[in-house]
Amino acid sequence: MKNFIYDVPTRILFGQGQVSNLGKEVKKHASKVLLLYGKNSIKQSGLYDEVIKYLSEENIDIIELSGVDPNPRIETVRKGADLCRKFNLELVLAVGGGSTIDCAKAIAAQAKYHGDVWKDLYVDKKVNLLTSALPVASILTLAATGSEMNGNTVISNPAENLKLGLGSSILRPVFSILDPTYTFSVNKYQTAAGIVDIMSHLFEQYFSPDKKGYLQARVMEGLLKTVIHYGPIAFENPTDYEARANIMWASSLSLNGLTSVGKESTDWATHAMEHELSAKYDITHGVGLGILTPYWMEYVLDIENVHRFVEYANNVWGIFGEDDFEVARKVIRKTREFFDSLDIPSTLTDINIDSSKFEDMATGATRLGTIGTMKKLNYADVLEILTMSL
Amino acid sequence: MKNFIYDVPTRILFGQGQVSNLGKEVKKHASKVLLLYGKNSIKQSGLYDEVIKYLSEENIDIIELSGVDPNPRIETVRKGADLCRKFNLELVLAVGGGSTIDCAKAIAAQAKYHGDVWKDLYVDKKVNLLTSALPVASILTLAATGSEMNGNTVISNPAENLKLGLGSSILRPVFSILDPTYTFSVNKYQTAAGIVDIMSHLFEQYFSPDKKGYLQARVMEGLLKTVIHYGPIAFENPTDYEARANIMWASSLSLNGLTSVGKESTDWATHAMEHELSAKYDITHGVGLGILTPYWMEYVLDIENVHRFVEYANNVWGIFGEDDFEVARKVIRKTREFFDSLDIPSTLTDINIDSSKFEDMATGATRLGTIGTMKKLNYADVLEILTMSL
Repeated sequence: MKNFIYDVPTRILFGQGQVSNLGKEVKKHASKVLLLYGKNSIKQSGLYDEVIKYLSEENIDIIELSGVDPNPRIETVRKGADLCRKFNLELVLAVGGGSTIDCAKAIAAQAKYHGDVWKDLYVDKKVNLLTSALPVASILTLAATGSEMNGNTVISNPAENLKLGLGSSILRPVFSILDPTYTFSVNKYQTAAGIVDIMSHLFEQYFSPDKKGYLQARVMEGLLKTVIHYGPIAFENPTDYEARANIMWASSLSLNGLTSVGKESTDWATHAMEHELSAKYDITHGVGLGILTPYWMEYVLDIENVHRFVEYANNVWGIFGEDDFEVARKVIRKTREFFDSLDIPSTLTDINIDSSKFEDMATGATRLGTIGTMKKLNYADVLEILTMSL
Repeated sequence: MKNFIYDVPTRILFGQGQVSNLGKEVKKHASKVLLLYGKNSIKQSGLYDEVIKYLSEENIDIIELSGVDPNPRIETVRKGADLCRKFNLELVLAVGGGSTIDCAKAIAAQAKYHGDVWKDLYVDKKVNLLTSALPVASILTLAATGSEMNGNTVISNPAENLKLGLGSSILRPVFSILDPTYTFSVNKYQTAAGIVDIMSHLFEQYFSPDKKGYLQARVMEGLLKTVIHYGPIAFENPTDYEARANIMWASSLSLNGLTSVGKESTDWATHAMEHELSAKYDITHGVGLGILTPYWMEYVLDIENVHRFVEYANNVWGIFGEDDFEVARKVIRKTREFFDSLDIPSTLTDINIDSSKFEDMATGATRLGTIGTMKKLNYADVLEILTMSL
């Protein structure tokens, strides 16, 4: 096991009705907040009114910024940071899914940063320049990204055709409210995309060529089984509390550090490729991941890493066999079938993407060098996986 | 899933050599500390010298208290609290195993508490009276209790023949240093007892009569598999880093809240019974648990809870079968055989305990009412389990 620091102080308030604690949780950190959300869905659901009520009860001043996009954009970040400075806001409260929380983190960083976070932190990756940020808190309405319990943020810059990530423990939310009933209204398409996103986070950490990380692999298998068990239940019955709750908590635990700390290596090539796809085509992240993942699995599978596929097959799906490669191919098919069962498209053609930007995307995904560890993917490898995905 | 708050801010510094960060971690919280440890083993190993060196480098004043017993006693707690008050100490640093850390927490509580923590908190269970405590930090030298990442403390009062626990989030260590090499010198007996203790913590949370807690059960199965895989390796080869590291981290994750939050119920009857045993006979906690657990399993198994045994059999041991009760009995035998393989005694007679204090113990274990949830055990039930264990 590699040396690590595990430091996950985000306070999680989990369960139905936890929003009633919002005011007093915010009050610990701030008396003036930026309230950030996306479209009107939180107004339709009544959540907006509850947020206003519980913040007002504690006399917390609110400046609002709405209209955060599903792939949140740098312009929104700049707008939010300007508001924070202008009104001396003390905390950014995101109400929404991962996009809104990611945007809140970028705003919290930019609000206290003298340069341009996009250029310095997202593009040039000088993460050490970030020494402080406003505190971020979240009320989660979609289980997918894990952003509610980690320091990651992914932002799009359509003018530059870029979608880039940043991770810093400074950006970890101080608290997050996870009420599974807020996800009852998530439609089948977004529910499925969220399930794939969670599984992909686990795959990216689970699949590594080294033979260590025993504890982490066993914990991830438990989380994968949870999502595989409850995913189809939530897909069929959107108001099944137990299913929504298990998926929501699995989502947070799958990307808060628990499953990666101490691991010798993780992969993340599929995410790098998908970020290119959704930067160019503004598709739903989980759908992009669902299309690419099985092709990536087929492409990287080799004698050096087949043991990970066998573990995955045995321990998650109960698939056993004499021949390791046969077992591996079976479990890759099984994974695709699972995504199919959630109506996830299985090719890029299905979502009207052709090969015209493949070269751009392969260049973009590998602009800092090879990606991944199961197999180190270069430009030609990425091009090949994209072509397989057509 | 039940509503819950998950708030585990303990910063973990994991891996070989992390003690070099001790000074600067302490400095965040204190400039004068109580250094608490047990016998001379940390002097023999050289760890004591390192601790002094890294604290001194940051000009941290040190008052020492050594001689903490394996079942730490209330007199030591009082002595430590007096030192904290007398010298205005700002943090209690425990260097040792769970006993030392438990003792540090009790000292940290008593140092800021006007009444008697033993009477008010341990005996009378008025946990809400504890509103503050000195910060606690730890350097762990034995993987077993999980005390390094939770707010639990168990203290013995030999004069009253009592061993009682207390849990409060206020007592969670601010940081803990987990260096697996410190456990290289732990002997086979204590290594085995630690393994059983970790497994018992998981059993106490895993076994519950309700059919919920899917995610938690799957994560616990992962941790159980980790300990079952690496336990015998560490037992045979005490300096196997990967084994010691996996066991150490599993130990912390098994009792920090991760595996219990959201569960409808947990059990903890075996711990209640074992505390009676070690209060009366000063035996090693993990050994007491190892003896009692399989008898407890046999005794509580019934139609209402057999499903938990079947899950445990299928998912941890790969034991399957047509008849649920047969599968359950097989996995109980398997658990005993595993403990046997670590040379854990299998009866009370093996450790020279007879039935003479059984009635006292049954009274003590049930003094606040029935214990456990798999089957609610009363005085007669406890007496029966103790008798089975002879």
